[in-house]
Amino acid sequence: MVSGRIRVHYSVRLENRRDAHARADAIAREQTVELPRGGYPSHFDDCIVGAIESVESRGAGDWRIVISYDPFTAGDDLPQLLNLLYGNVSLLTDIGIAEVELPEQVLDAYAGPAFGLEGLRKLTGVYDRPIVVGTIKPMGLSSEDLAALCSTFADAGIDIVKDDHSLTNQATAPFDDRVRLCKQAVTTSNERRQGSTLYVPNVTAEPGEVERRVEYAKSVGCRAVLIAPALTGLGAMKALTQMDIAVLAHPAGSGSFLRGSGLPAPFLYGTLFRMAGADGVIYLNAGGRFPFTEEECQAINNRAREPLGQIRAALPIAGGGVDAGRVEYWIRRYGKDVGFLVGSSLYAQADLGAATQALVTAVAEA
Amino acid sequence: MVSGRIRVHYSVRLENRRDAHARADAIAREQTVELPRGGYPSHFDDCIVGAIESVESRGAGDWRIVISYDPFTAGDDLPQLLNLLYGNVSLLTDIGIAEVELPEQVLDAYAGPAFGLEGLRKLTGVYDRPIVVGTIKPMGLSSEDLAALCSTFADAGIDIVKDDHSLTNQATAPFDDRVRLCKQAVTTSNERRQGSTLYVPNVTAEPGEVERRVEYAKSVGCRAVLIAPALTGLGAMKALTQMDIAVLAHPAGSGSFLRGSGLPAPFLYGTLFRMAGADGVIYLNAGGRFPFTEEECQAINNRAREPLGQIRAALPIAGGGVDAGRVEYWIRRYGKDVGFLVGSSLYAQADLGAATQALVTAVAEA
Repeated sequence: MVSGRIRVHYSVRLENRRDAHARADAIAREQTVELPRGGYPSHFDDCIVGAIESVESRGAGDWRIVISYDPFTAGDDLPQLLNLLYGNVSLLTDIGIAEVELPEQVLDAYAGPAFGLEGLRKLTGVYDRPIVVGTIKPMGLSSEDLAALCSTFADAGIDIVKDDHSLTNQATAPFDDRVRLCKQAVTTSNERRQGSTLYVPNVTAEPGEVERRVEYAKSVGCRAVLIAPALTGLGAMKALTQMDIAVLAHPAGSGSFLRGSGLPAPFLYGTLFRMAGADGVIYLNAGGRFPFTEEECQAINNRAREPLGQIRAALPIAGGGVDAGRVEYWIRRYGKDVGFLVGSSLYAQADLGAATQALVTAVAEA
Repeated sequence: MVSGRIRVHYSVRLENRRDAHARADAIAREQTVELPRGGYPSHFDDCIVGAIESVESRGAGDWRIVISYDPFTAGDDLPQLLNLLYGNVSLLTDIGIAEVELPEQVLDAYAGPAFGLEGLRKLTGVYDRPIVVGTIKPMGLSSEDLAALCSTFADAGIDIVKDDHSLTNQATAPFDDRVRLCKQAVTTSNERRQGSTLYVPNVTAEPGEVERRVEYAKSVGCRAVLIAPALTGLGAMKALTQMDIAVLAHPAGSGSFLRGSGLPAPFLYGTLFRMAGADGVIYLNAGGRFPFTEEECQAINNRAREPLGQIRAALPIAGGGVDAGRVEYWIRRYGKDVGFLVGSSLYAQADLGAATQALVTAVAEA
């Protein structure tokens, strides 16, 4: 926690070391007044313009520049916070962001997740082990086929079964139809097994329609929804925290914030998505199809769970790289306050139900 | 225009040329079924999974892979279109997107800008030359100070004076207060000069609040607003096309889509932002503080103006790199159907009003 000011650590490529301070000064103005010196009241240099905290060479043209900003510059909403952190800077390809530190004064403007990690534990009834998440897919299947997959997952005792993020409102499985049948399938399985599997539909859509889908999902008994905030805008996810529904954040499109040394992944998933209301944050695990390292993933876990002002902890959910054989390895590293999202590796097996059951058992016994 | 299918041209880094076809196949599934072969009905390979159109070496590990997708996979809204184009792929850092071609069937789902290039000409009364846009800034100034800047710009005969994208709802100049005073200042100047300068407030905010700000802006007589769709989500901009107000799209945060060879800039600004309802699209011009080439900017101009299904042309607005001395150069290259957004270079001069007047005159006489 930083008291007082927002601190942004920039990674900057510089051909000439004599340019270092001028570049730091340019960034401090670019993200605030966006004007050359002389074009604004000079006392703004002491309050509005960023303050250069340090300028340090890392060798071979690589510089680390730390600039601090008055909380005033972050405004009072997510778009302006994002603008301060990654507005014009996103367009400057020789600048990356290595770290972001936010003071209490900024954090206090965000209520964060309405349920959080503990809330998801209550909703699933799973307290002493990682939460296991499965996905129904692909797009193109009918609502009935998808509901049958829900039954298979729920019967196998999975904790959460969610829509694939590519299931929206396709004619093959229109939202309302799919959500009603899938929820019904999971409820039937829960009643039979005395289980408490959650079905989590995907509400990623345009403004207005997101809220309509949430209301529909609630009307058929859903307690949580999935949204991809990088596709809808982070504000759309934050709005859901007012709707008495738990929220899982899907990472689709979020590479846009990370590419080319953009925002650091632990900050994006563990801090920003959490501030924006994610009760659970899905990220792409090391060992899967995506280029994240175990260290990055561990940092995401820590960020999602560590104290952050008055904001609840979020459940970090590692997607990919997990199967029954590797579960023990990941629990040893990530601890029990984590979710495992398992998709392709289950579908690749002949019997989806048996594979899911083996995985859930492996998690419970690890 | 492509008839039938969506075509995405991927730029892919490959260590080993023997991997090329396997990689193409992996992308075609990653963006659609997200499953290994065998994990979904085999006939989906003919309709849901992308079709590999070509795989071509460009030398030195650089491959160009073209995959076409059924329009079905793009769903019926912006988040799913973005998901298909740049969902999981955004997280694969060895894959970039070089070109996107959308068929009529996809374009037909988007009404595009409600006013467009021609609508902005009607609103400003400027038909035979580029439209000149100025910006009031920086954040930290009072509403009165910002309104005084509006008067200066309007008195100098500028066509559009817009809020800086960092002006949101800061305590120094709360939205309603600022917009009322700024609109009043521009109206007073218009009446005195028989002018038709447009004042364009920034409505970039969280869901709900965007709409409230638009309604307020309309209530005091504004005819156009500014929004940064990369900060709010593209859907928030699209929703404005239903509110009888013209929309300028600001590029803050849009580097997130471009970095690391993400989406191509001409497609992002000239096609996607236009489909999402931008009447005017601000981009960062060559010769300014940002790393865009003149060729890229020319391609953005062309994309914004060229036929695109039934969607109106948008006004491309070049921001940066423009001053009175260089105006003729840019008009020779970009033509007259363009806007020039001029900020820092005017504020850097001693007399903002005189500098603005000189610029407007230079544009009119070029």
